[in-house]
Amino acid sequence: MSQPPNHRFPPDPWCLRETALDEATHFLNETLFALGNGYIGVRGTAEEGWSGAAGTSRDGTYLNGFYESEPIHYPETAYGLARTNQFMLNVPNAKGLAIWLGDERFDPLWGTLDQYERSLDLRRGVLERSLRWTAPSGKSIAVHSRRIVCFENKHLLALQVDVTPLNFSGTIRIVTALDGAVRNLEAGDDPRVGSSVSGASLELLAAEQDGDFSALVQRTRNSGFTLVSATLTEAPGTAQCSREELRLEGTYDVAAEQGKAVRVTKYVSYHTSRDYPEGELLPRSRAVLEQARQGGFEALAARQATYLADFWRQADVEIDGDDLLQQGIRFNEYHLLQSVGRDGKTNISAKGVTGEGYEGHYFWDTEIYIFPFFLYNKPDIARALLEYRWAGLEAARRRARQMSHPKGALYPWRTIAGEECSAYFPAGTAQYHINADIAYSIRQYLDATGDDDWLRAQGAEIVMETARIWTGIGSFDRHGRFVINEVTGPDEYTALVNNNYYTNAMAQAHLEFAAAIADRLAREFPEDHARIAAAMALDPAEPEAWRHAARHMHLPYDEELGIHAQDDSFLSKRRWDFANTPAENYPLLLHYHPMVIYRHQVCKQADVVLALLLLSSRFGLDDKRRDFDYYEAVTTHDSSLSSCIFSIIAAEVGHAGKAYDYFMETARMDLDDTHGNTCHGVHTAAMAGTWLGVAQGFGGMRTDGGALRFAPTLPAQWRGYRFRVHLRGCLLQVSVNAAGTRYRLLQGNALSLSHRGKAIALTAAQPEHEEAA
Amino acid sequence: MSQPPNHRFPPDPWCLRETALDEATHFLNETLFALGNGYIGVRGTAEEGWSGAAGTSRDGTYLNGFYESEPIHYPETAYGLARTNQFMLNVPNAKGLAIWLGDERFDPLWGTLDQYERSLDLRRGVLERSLRWTAPSGKSIAVHSRRIVCFENKHLLALQVDVTPLNFSGTIRIVTALDGAVRNLEAGDDPRVGSSVSGASLELLAAEQDGDFSALVQRTRNSGFTLVSATLTEAPGTAQCSREELRLEGTYDVAAEQGKAVRVTKYVSYHTSRDYPEGELLPRSRAVLEQARQGGFEALAARQATYLADFWRQADVEIDGDDLLQQGIRFNEYHLLQSVGRDGKTNISAKGVTGEGYEGHYFWDTEIYIFPFFLYNKPDIARALLEYRWAGLEAARRRARQMSHPKGALYPWRTIAGEECSAYFPAGTAQYHINADIAYSIRQYLDATGDDDWLRAQGAEIVMETARIWTGIGSFDRHGRFVINEVTGPDEYTALVNNNYYTNAMAQAHLEFAAAIADRLAREFPEDHARIAAAMALDPAEPEAWRHAARHMHLPYDEELGIHAQDDSFLSKRRWDFANTPAENYPLLLHYHPMVIYRHQVCKQADVVLALLLLSSRFGLDDKRRDFDYYEAVTTHDSSLSSCIFSIIAAEVGHAGKAYDYFMETARMDLDDTHGNTCHGVHTAAMAGTWLGVAQGFGGMRTDGGALRFAPTLPAQWRGYRFRVHLRGCLLQVSVNAAGTRYRLLQGNALSLSHRGKAIALTAAQPEHEEAA
Repeated sequence: MSQPPNHRFPPDPWCLRETALDEATHFLNETLFALGNGYIGVRGTAEEGWSGAAGTSRDGTYLNGFYESEPIHYPETAYGLARTNQFMLNVPNAKGLAIWLGDERFDPLWGTLDQYERSLDLRRGVLERSLRWTAPSGKSIAVHSRRIVCFENKHLLALQVDVTPLNFSGTIRIVTALDGAVRNLEAGDDPRVGSSVSGASLELLAAEQDGDFSALVQRTRNSGFTLVSATLTEAPGTAQCSREELRLEGTYDVAAEQGKAVRVTKYVSYHTSRDYPEGELLPRSRAVLEQARQGGFEALAARQATYLADFWRQADVEIDGDDLLQQGIRFNEYHLLQSVGRDGKTNISAKGVTGEGYEGHYFWDTEIYIFPFFLYNKPDIARALLEYRWAGLEAARRRARQMSHPKGALYPWRTIAGEECSAYFPAGTAQYHINADIAYSIRQYLDATGDDDWLRAQGAEIVMETARIWTGIGSFDRHGRFVINEVTGPDEYTALVNNNYYTNAMAQAHLEFAAAIADRLAREFPEDHARIAAAMALDPAEPEAWRHAARHMHLPYDEELGIHAQDDSFLSKRRWDFANTPAENYPLLLHYHPMVIYRHQVCKQADVVLALLLLSSRFGLDDKRRDFDYYEAVTTHDSSLSSCIFSIIAAEVGHAGKAYDYFMETARMDLDDTHGNTCHGVHTAAMAGTWLGVAQGFGGMRTDGGALRFAPTLPAQWRGYRFRVHLRGCLLQVSVNAAGTRYRLLQGNALSLSHRGKAIALTAAQPEHEEAA
Repeated sequence: MSQPPNHRFPPDPWCLRETALDEATHFLNETLFALGNGYIGVRGTAEEGWSGAAGTSRDGTYLNGFYESEPIHYPETAYGLARTNQFMLNVPNAKGLAIWLGDERFDPLWGTLDQYERSLDLRRGVLERSLRWTAPSGKSIAVHSRRIVCFENKHLLALQVDVTPLNFSGTIRIVTALDGAVRNLEAGDDPRVGSSVSGASLELLAAEQDGDFSALVQRTRNSGFTLVSATLTEAPGTAQCSREELRLEGTYDVAAEQGKAVRVTKYVSYHTSRDYPEGELLPRSRAVLEQARQGGFEALAARQATYLADFWRQADVEIDGDDLLQQGIRFNEYHLLQSVGRDGKTNISAKGVTGEGYEGHYFWDTEIYIFPFFLYNKPDIARALLEYRWAGLEAARRRARQMSHPKGALYPWRTIAGEECSAYFPAGTAQYHINADIAYSIRQYLDATGDDDWLRAQGAEIVMETARIWTGIGSFDRHGRFVINEVTGPDEYTALVNNNYYTNAMAQAHLEFAAAIADRLAREFPEDHARIAAAMALDPAEPEAWRHAARHMHLPYDEELGIHAQDDSFLSKRRWDFANTPAENYPLLLHYHPMVIYRHQVCKQADVVLALLLLSSRFGLDDKRRDFDYYEAVTTHDSSLSSCIFSIIAAEVGHAGKAYDYFMETARMDLDDTHGNTCHGVHTAAMAGTWLGVAQGFGGMRTDGGALRFAPTLPAQWRGYRFRVHLRGCLLQVSVNAAGTRYRLLQGNALSLSHRGKAIALTAAQPEHEEAA
């Protein structure tokens, strides 16, 4: 696929607008114009479908957490490898709506497209399209459509199409469809896109067609879930129902009058047995759709706008002086809201619900990149993300046993329902740091919310069970150092190494945190302590063993270079020959054997540099600068998780230009398709990295260690910026411009923070404070 | 499968004899009684087939180097991974011969088996069976069969069955079959057995039945080879031909007379388009079979005996005082002769041609374990094994490019036709030492034969092209050391490490050798030098760069422990908890995730200890003893390649009891099924390790550095032993007993050797020398 031109969209700060239909960018734009509500995801393909060339479209409808499973076949197997893959299913396409003028079918790639516009309104949450089209016979119509995936009801999607005959009166035929003949993508050479061997389809249990109502009842063959996809259509006249295997159609022949719109409204629902007993699915579908029809499309649109107004009130980031960037930031935040599961059973996948890249799997991206965005903007969603990990604790315990740990829980590197699905363990299961990442997010959550109820109910047990893995995998070497061998850190261009700095440092913090929690529970909540200790068979000596390991943790440092070593051997490897690597050989993983990459000093992404952010208070500024300079020179940023972290640390160490460039790369990654694969879905971690880049990068916000700290800088390219932070029930606004920084308590009674080390206390009575630049 | 009792066979020094039919050991014994000639391999299943329970048999006929290929599907793929597997095919079963007495079919598991004996005569090369059987009706027969896979004609197999009615006269029906309805084993959980996803069968092109002659013409679907399997039967009367799909039968109704044998002789041939043009296959098959029939079975048997007499004259090892061991040693040597390809296009697979374990792949086992046996016993076969590597040089060059080496050749870790087939690269392609292993065998060959013609024609180019890989993969670190990172050494319980001692030491020797060869060619054979240098685009500075790298090669050594470190980090890992590992958890690879194994100090097999043997003259005896003691304590010997090397070094460092125990483990590995998987094929490397154990272990024979050295010791359990060594046209016999060592030149004019450092010169005039103990 050829690289689309950059900055293709007019720089509207609240809207993504396309004014021409271009086959070359259609596949990509299907992702960008995708709608979602954290559960349903629908790619931005039009109601009439797409007749373009192969490879210019990939329609899809997805339900977060609704998956099929299939055995993983290894050409050479080994004990303990993940045995079953889970992948997000492409579910029936319910948005189909064809328009016929006699025997001419409306198709924007045929006839004449006189006018065209498609837009996604970030404040209203509506995908809208307006066009005028003339058929070869000369008949002209105007088509206006709106589509909503309702934030307030995860099961509901609605679309409305107005067709207006412009130069004739006569019959217009509308054919609406519920189409179950869909499949998943099959695996190609790119390991980042769909690795399923088979595009397994759903088994049909029943099909219902009853006037305006249609439903397909299907079951996944291996995971054993039932799905009901249903539509309720409002259109003039009565539907002629027909069915072709998995495709249910309703045909409306409407006597249309020149200049008067024919309106069709379609309400769509998806319900599965992951949420409800099987017998309830069909009745619930009917009820949800009937209720939606009674309220009508406009009511749904109004509630959608209300929901979003609340979201933006909490989460909006404003950039003064850069509309392109403003658009990118809001687009990214909006997509995060569309992608994130919030029911405690689902999470946020690497591509959200916008495409099949990475098979709908959840990774550490959630905890380290996305979680802080929700924690500081929508803490209720952050808690739901942690509840998802609680739901996976049993599976993590089982996985720990498979990995020969008699105690503890090991979370999977990639999964949907909790079981390890990584089929290449050196860059999967070997990333033991996932345990520390989860514990880190729990600590952030507790610091930010003080939610001791959750700590007692779920958090403490997760933190302690996961901490046990470190004393299981690690050991004391001859020199008394606690070493963790044969793991893979965040940087996937190095694998199976000893003492990955990030892993060891995060494990150290995790062990300290777990011991502190054990102490605090025993002291403050002895009954909870007793209950959890019994459930875990916690040896009273364990917390001290955790502290002991943490105290002696080996944290590799190179005295000669004055930098932290990514692992024991990284710095003794040959540097990648960047000068002789042609641009088309990036990302390296698509052009070099893993061994070739592994034996060089080359990073796909931040590793030590990420530790500098997460454990910020443990490093001096000079350390940070030396580490940044060293690792920046050997990092390709082939991972979409890289540039945001480099932006943040660049800002901290004073590389303002680099901070800005890395930030721009992050903020417009998907809009400008800089990684060339947004067609397969948005990059949710980088989207969250955008918010991190503003708050933690330019704003210098840090919370590790518990205190809220800021050290704002202003990029030369901007006049100012403003972001908000939810913390302990307060909503803080931070505004930065050339004059200085203004802190304002928008909500809440009192909040303490520091500005470049200076303590500031805001109260309801004194809600504002300004520091000059 | 339950462990069979040890030492099941009477300790006949020249014969393997079974006197009872036991379902529990039948599957295993099919392997032990397999016949082969380096090309055809036939498992020891009887002509009438086997009606025992599932899992008690796995019939098979294999042709060395005749393979099907199939794509390798990775659940998560990456650039440069091996894309196509090759696997040795199970070809049509041509030995089928059923005996019917009226409606009663002879089946030793039915009716009454009055007497039974099966034997494999190692001097005659005949599998023989005698039995008496009574049908439920009371009719008794004697059955006597003999089977030969002809060493002198690789395409030919012959079998003869005599059926004698003992207590009746009447019709005996003989049904001979050529059965193409065979499949390959499918993959299970044991990565060592058949990893093919599909048991792809051959496509039928034609079937011929013409009186006593039958043939199947088939083609492999992917590799595109044609195979003709043909039989010619001699039996009383005329065949009634019939065919059921892929099974061709010939039925003979014979009026048998009580006490008189009915004799059926069946000549079988296999020809493939890997050897001949497709159009020649059928005519050649007819000609070979017709010629065999004209000569008759006895003539084939006589030639077989002659061939073997010559083999034993060169290769026999005699043990005085241990018949069990004597039997084991001869059995092993015999199976090596049966297994080894000798046409320059084929090699010797890990299981020979006796089973489907490891899919018929060739490994480094050839060069490091098996090659010395043939070099010092049948040097013509040793040369053919090197010619096989020459045939693979182009594929190795292509593989090097895939692995981003702009120059040089990288041999595959496992293959049949030369392409890399290892589907788990950390224990496959990562074993770069294969290149040094091949160069080592070439050096041994040149030292032992002085075959400069082969050096000039093939050897020099292989050695230099493979040496180039070391300067490609290695690099100079900050301290000026030449390091080789991210490779896997021989020990597969550690993977992707930096500076594996064995690899670096062997690479050093390889680089030195390549530079010496470049010099010698330039000096002695300038035309060859010019030709090869042009073909390789050899830079005149390269040999010096090889020497430079060799000089600075990093050879990890631990000063504190006084031992060579298996790699940079091995000694800092936690020791495996052997005390708490139950016996049933071995081999570890079937009970622990690779990461669990990799992060511990635990070895599957000799690694540093193997270097002590191959590069013997570079180590002092104290070094060897310390290394042996350290690594022995952390080695599981889960690999069949381990015990023979430990035996040899134990003998050298004075651990006589251990030397004997490891040797016994090696020598009777298959006969006693100590690894529990001989049912899937013999362990050819361990079989060769038996000869190494005698010559290099007890005999103390070393040749590294060019000189022939001995340092014999006599195990307390033996009265004496004797072995022979072919070297530079001479045949030397070494006899050791309590009195001392006697060296005798059986053939050749002059040979120099040393005995414990003392120089000895043997000549035709003075062919014998004795050293007192």
